[in-house]
Amino acid sequence: MTNPSTPPLGAEPETPSVEIETLLTQAAEAAPRWAALTPRARAAALAAVADVLEANSEHLVAVADQETGLGVARLSGEVKRTAGQLRAYGAYAVTGAPFGVTIDHADPEAAPPRPELRRHQVPLGPVEVFAGGNFPFAFSVAGTDTAAALAAGCPVLLKAHPGHPRTSATTAALVREALAEAGAPLGTFALFTGRDAGVTVLRDPRVRAAAFTGSVRGGRALFDIAAARPVPIPFFGELGSINPVVVTPAALADRRADIVVGFAGSFTLGTGQFCTKPGVLLLPRDPLAVEEIAAQVRPANAAPMLSAPIAEGYRRRLSEVAGATRTRVLVEGAVTTDEDGRPQASPSLFAVATVEEFLQEADNLLEECFGPSAVIVQYGGKDEAARVLDRLDGSLTVTFHTAEGDAGALAPLVELAQNKAGRVLFNGWPTGVAVIRAQQHGGPYPAATSAQTSVGPYAVERFLRPVAYQDALPELLPAALREDNPLQLVRTVDGKTETA
Amino acid sequence: MTNPSTPPLGAEPETPSVEIETLLTQAAEAAPRWAALTPRARAAALAAVADVLEANSEHLVAVADQETGLGVARLSGEVKRTAGQLRAYGAYAVTGAPFGVTIDHADPEAAPPRPELRRHQVPLGPVEVFAGGNFPFAFSVAGTDTAAALAAGCPVLLKAHPGHPRTSATTAALVREALAEAGAPLGTFALFTGRDAGVTVLRDPRVRAAAFTGSVRGGRALFDIAAARPVPIPFFGELGSINPVVVTPAALADRRADIVVGFAGSFTLGTGQFCTKPGVLLLPRDPLAVEEIAAQVRPANAAPMLSAPIAEGYRRRLSEVAGATRTRVLVEGAVTTDEDGRPQASPSLFAVATVEEFLQEADNLLEECFGPSAVIVQYGGKDEAARVLDRLDGSLTVTFHTAEGDAGALAPLVELAQNKAGRVLFNGWPTGVAVIRAQQHGGPYPAATSAQTSVGPYAVERFLRPVAYQDALPELLPAALREDNPLQLVRTVDGKTETA
Repeated sequence: MTNPSTPPLGAEPETPSVEIETLLTQAAEAAPRWAALTPRARAAALAAVADVLEANSEHLVAVADQETGLGVARLSGEVKRTAGQLRAYGAYAVTGAPFGVTIDHADPEAAPPRPELRRHQVPLGPVEVFAGGNFPFAFSVAGTDTAAALAAGCPVLLKAHPGHPRTSATTAALVREALAEAGAPLGTFALFTGRDAGVTVLRDPRVRAAAFTGSVRGGRALFDIAAARPVPIPFFGELGSINPVVVTPAALADRRADIVVGFAGSFTLGTGQFCTKPGVLLLPRDPLAVEEIAAQVRPANAAPMLSAPIAEGYRRRLSEVAGATRTRVLVEGAVTTDEDGRPQASPSLFAVATVEEFLQEADNLLEECFGPSAVIVQYGGKDEAARVLDRLDGSLTVTFHTAEGDAGALAPLVELAQNKAGRVLFNGWPTGVAVIRAQQHGGPYPAATSAQTSVGPYAVERFLRPVAYQDALPELLPAALREDNPLQLVRTVDGKTETA
Repeated sequence: MTNPSTPPLGAEPETPSVEIETLLTQAAEAAPRWAALTPRARAAALAAVADVLEANSEHLVAVADQETGLGVARLSGEVKRTAGQLRAYGAYAVTGAPFGVTIDHADPEAAPPRPELRRHQVPLGPVEVFAGGNFPFAFSVAGTDTAAALAAGCPVLLKAHPGHPRTSATTAALVREALAEAGAPLGTFALFTGRDAGVTVLRDPRVRAAAFTGSVRGGRALFDIAAARPVPIPFFGELGSINPVVVTPAALADRRADIVVGFAGSFTLGTGQFCTKPGVLLLPRDPLAVEEIAAQVRPANAAPMLSAPIAEGYRRRLSEVAGATRTRVLVEGAVTTDEDGRPQASPSLFAVATVEEFLQEADNLLEECFGPSAVIVQYGGKDEAARVLDRLDGSLTVTFHTAEGDAGALAPLVELAQNKAGRVLFNGWPTGVAVIRAQQHGGPYPAATSAQTSVGPYAVERFLRPVAYQDALPELLPAALREDNPLQLVRTVDGKTETA
C-alpha cells in the first residue's frame, strides 16, 4: 500500500498546457521588469518572502511533516535555513559582487588606442527550477535555486517535487503573495506540476536556464534535453555523490568513539536521504572498529522515507550492494511501511574486507545508494586509500579524519580528493552544508553538471551573463555601470577593486 | 585550382592515433605539475612564449602571409596582440583574481555553528583548443584560448586549423621550446592535426574542457559531442554573429561621411573574415546614403580569402542572399582565384528597401555570411529598428551610431541590444576587440555556447572550478588558501575584499 501523498512514478498531476503557456508568457513579461529593479529592491522582496515563511513556519512544518515524516525539529530548522538563504543571497546581490562591474577607461595613447569598456553581468531571463524531494523547504519551492535566481534578477518557474505537493502549494502561495506585496511584477514566480510540463518548460525558448536537484538518471535526462535545444541553455544539476570518508590510523587511535558514533549518525541522518550522506568509509584494518560501528547502527529503528519511489530505489540498491560477491552484510536493513502506509527504512551496513575486493566491484559499490546505508572498506595504507579515491567518480565531498602528525602522509590523498570533489573536509561529517560565501556545493560530474556551487551566495552568479558597453553615452548606461556608482556596487576600475 | 596550402574539406592530414594517445597521456601527466606551479611561475613561462614569438615575428609573419594572404602589416600587429594576450592573462592570474580565494573563518557562536571554509578555483585539467582560421596568431596556436588555459594552469592540446598548417607548426615549435625552457613539464602544450583526431581528443576522459572558434555548424557538432560524453565537459565555442549596426537620423546628419566610409571599411576589413564583421546596417530612410556607401565599396579590389572552403562558403551565402526576392544587389562581389591559385573575393553589398521586406526573409538575411558582404536595411523609426533587433539571434555585438539628443529615444533599443549581444558599442565599429578586463567577446547562442568571454583576461576563468576546504589542518592547505597568503593573491576574507 502506498501513501496517497506520495504517488507512484508517472502518476504526478500535470498542470494543463494552456496554463503552462500562460505562466511562460508571464515569466517572459516579468523578466525585464524584475531585472530592472535594483538589487536592493529585489533583496527587500526576498526578505519579505523570508519573513512570511518564518511567520508561517508552524503551519508549513505541520503540512511538511505529514507529507514527508521528516519531523518537526528538522523541518523547523529547514524553514529557518530557507529564510536565511533568501536573505543572504539578496544581501550578497546588494554588495554588487555577483554583477562583476568592471570599468576600463579609454586610453587614446595606447597602441592601438583603447576604447572605454564597462562590463557587468545581467540576468539570464526566466529560470526553470526543478525542486528537490529531500529538503521540502531548503531545496524546494523557496529553496536555494529559487533564492539564487530571484536575487540574480531572473523570474522562476518552479516545477514542484511530487513528494510534498501540499507543502509546495502552501509555500508557493506565500511566496507569490509576499513578492507581489513587495512590488515584484506578476510572473516573477510561479509553481507548476508534472513531468511532461517540466520538459515542456525546459524546451521553451523563453526559458534561459534550469536548475535541478535529484537523481543522476533524472538529472542527466534533463541535462541532455537542455543541451539538445536549438538554443542550448545552462543546466545546473546537482545529481549523485558517494562522499567517501577516510579515517587515518592515528585518528582512529585518538578519537575512536567519536568516529564510530559520528559516522553511524551521519549516514543515517534524515534516513540517509542527503546528497552529502557518506556512502563509503575507508577504515584502517581494525575488524573490531567495524563491529563497533555495526553495533552503533543496529539499535536504530526504521525511519520514514520521503516517498514510495525513493524507498523502491533504496530497496533496489540495497539488493545490488548485498548481491556483490565480496560484500558482507553487517546490518541488514529493510524497507517497510508504517501503519499509515508510509514507506520507511531501517539502516543497512556492509563491509568489504580489502580494497582489492572493493575495487573488483567498484561500479556497483561506488554508485550512490540514496537511503541509510554505507559500505565500510578496510584499507592497508595510504596507497590503498589512494587507489579508492582515484577510482571515484566526481563527488560533492571527500572527508578525512586525521590526527596530529598525519599531514605529510596525507598530502597526496588530499590532492586526489581535490581532483574528485567540490569540498574537502577534515574531522567532521559532510552532512552539514553551511550557507556562506566560501561554500562549494557541487563537484565534478556526476556530483554536478556544472562547476558552480548550488548553495551559498555565490550560487547567484549562475544566473547571470556578462555584457560590455563600449564608449556608451553616459545617459544610456545602466545604473550599475555609471561613473558615479549610484547603486554603490563593488567594482573593479582600471584594474583596482573599489568597495563602495 | 586550389592553393596547395589550403586543402579542401576532408583532406586534412591526421596525426596518427598512437601519437594522439601519447599526447593525451603526457597532457594528463603534466596537468597536476603545471597546476602546482605558482601563477607567477606560469606567467613567467607565458611571457617567455610572448618574447620568443615577438623575436621571431618576421619569420612567423612571412610564413603566415604566404599561407593566408592577410598581409605583413595585419599579421605583424597580430603577433604583437598575441604576445600581449599571453602576458596579460599571465599577469591577471598573478593578481589572484581568477582563483576567487574566499575565506570564511569559523563561527562557533552561530546557530548552527559554522565551520571554517576556504575556497579557491583550481585548474580543470587538459583543455582541447580548436584553433580558428581567421586569426592565424591571435585565435590560433598561441592565441587567446591557449593563453587563457595555460594561465589558468591547464595543459593545452591544440587542434591546428587546416588553413595555415606551416604557421601552426612553426608557432607550436616556438611555444613548446619556450615553455620547456621556462620549466613547464612535458605535455603542457602539444599540437596535433585532423578532424577525426579532434573528435577523438574531445571524447577522451582525460580532456576536461574544450574551446573553439569557428562556424556555427562545426561548433555545434562539437558542442553536441562534448555534451553527450558519459562525463560531459564545458565547451566554450565562439560561433557565428551578425553584428548589426543601427544609425540614427541625427547621427547620419552629423557624421554622414564618417559613417559611410567607416561602415564600408569595417565590413570589408580583412576581407570580411572577422567574427565581429557588421553584417547588417540599419539606416534611416535615405536612398542617397545607400548609394554613397555602395560607391565607397565599388572601387575595392578583390582581396585574398583564407581558404578554399571559406571562399566556397562565402560564394554559397552570396547566392542565397542575392536569391532572396526582396534583395537588391548594390555591389556584386565575386569569388575568384589569383595567379597563384589562392581564393580571393571582392566585396558584395545588398539592400532591402524596408524592414517589412527584410523580416520576411530574416532566416536567410540574419544568418552570418563570412566574407566581405553586408545588407543595408532602411528603417522608418525606432519601432522598426526594434523589430529587427527583436528578431535577431544572439550576436557578439550590436552597434549604435548616435548623436546629441538621441539618448531618450534610444534607451529601449539599447535594452533590446543588451538582451541579444555580449557587447553594445557606440559610435565605433565592432571589428576591434580590445584585450582588457572589461571586454566581453561572446554573446547569446549562436554567438557563443557559453556566457563567458573568450577575449580579455577574464577568459582565464573559464578553465577553473571551485573547491572548498572545511576545517583543514593548516599544513594541508594549498598555498593559495593559507592564512598568511604567501602567493599574495587578491581574496575575500569574512566578506571583505583584501588586495595583497
